[in-house]
Amino acid sequence: MTQPSDKALVPFVSVDHMMRLVHRIGLDPMLKGLASYIEDDFRRWERFDKTPRIASHSDVGVIELMPTSDGEAYGFKYVNGHPRNTAAGLQTVTAFGLLADVATGYPVLLSEMTLLTALRTAATSAMVARHLAPKGAHTMAMIGNGAQSEFQSLAMRAICGIAAVRLYDSDPAATAKCATNLAGQGLRITRCTSAEEAIEGAQIITTCTADKRAATILDWRRAS
Amino acid sequence: MTQPSDKALVPFVSVDHMMRLVHRIGLDPMLKGLASYIEDDFRRWERFDKTPRIASHSDVGVIELMPTSDGEAYGFKYVNGHPRNTAAGLQTVTAFGLLADVATGYPVLLSEMTLLTALRTAATSAMVARHLAPKGAHTMAMIGNGAQSEFQSLAMRAICGIAAVRLYDSDPAATAKCATNLAGQGLRITRCTSAEEAIEGAQIITTCTADKRAATILDWRRAS
Repeated sequence: MTQPSDKALVPFVSVDHMMRLVHRIGLDPMLKGLASYIEDDFRRWERFDKTPRIASHSDVGVIELMPTSDGEAYGFKYVNGHPRNTAAGLQTVTAFGLLADVATGYPVLLSEMTLLTALRTAATSAMVARHLAPKGAHTMAMIGNGAQSEFQSLAMRAICGIAAVRLYDSDPAATAKCATNLAGQGLRITRCTSAEEAIEGAQIITTCTADKRAATILDWRRAS
Repeated sequence: MTQPSDKALVPFVSVDHMMRLVHRIGLDPMLKGLASYIEDDFRRWERFDKTPRIASHSDVGVIELMPTSDGEAYGFKYVNGHPRNTAAGLQTVTAFGLLADVATGYPVLLSEMTLLTALRTAATSAMVARHLAPKGAHTMAMIGNGAQSEFQSLAMRAICGIAAVRLYDSDPAATAKCATNLAGQGLRITRCTSAEEAIEGAQIITTCTADKRAATILDWRRAS
């Protein structure tokens, strides 16, 4: 019987590898480098397959596949979103991804993308804010204070020069944890007790929530 | 900074593991067992998400993602199809797949599916032939004699009791290799020089080709 070979076995980048990479490069240079690559890719937008993500929904969450290609490299991400996972000590979002060679269809790299998605999301937000925010923006309202909000705050500091972050979460424990984790990062942290309080004096507002039960985050009639 | 954990690291089944599993179970029981699981799944067809495969085409091939879910388990397969790969000593088709828990979105198993796809395809063909072929079928025409044709022949023997296989490929070297690899498997092998010759006396015709340039395999006006 003809036997397939294990030639297709590809390098795997684990969360530990990714953490070591971040520590070696440094978080700020990593976020700035990512933002630069992402901006370059937005500038060659027409080169990419724009296939919609393929979602599989259940009562408790969603699992999605996100493929794309630029004609030379093919990649996809597997990512879930399960807001109730945190109650069981699990992450809301986990992800991994694969890069393949379009010419042969062979995989070339398998990587964790839980950490990478957190970094990419934060770098993209900050890259966009650098283009859209008023010049001299110094304060951000950060609504939703889960793990992602720390990445968002650090990317806004590294890429947009944000000096102050005003935190609000419907769960005060999340705000407390975020404030503790961001201590000593050179950011002035203010804990707020409402979304309306958080946006006072902010030039940038970032929302970072996953729970569809609390989908209305800001009511402009109350905030104005 | 909150760090994601490597809890999401999942068992990986390599091609070597899969080969060892086939050898331990035995090819015939493995093919029969697969056919039984597959038939059970066809009987609960309405339970599955029927999302179309998501294909990314290039000039030389295709890369596809194939997700599905039965509400408890979610799975997808990554598979490529590159007919010109064989000229470079690479496989036309390679595949891997992931199984995940719908309740949490966490991956639970990552597996090679190059070998598994070969086994699944052969087991499905033979399961269908067992329902559709005339009773007492003993001879199969096997048109297209690449690696998959060996699996098809062995599954038809194990599941349908086929005793004779008539081989034809547009490349005589493929027919010769297939005949050599199938020797000693208890099948009467006949090498044919045309598709029309191959189907003489056959109750089952299996075509197994990937090259779109030779898409017309049988011309019924010539064959009749």
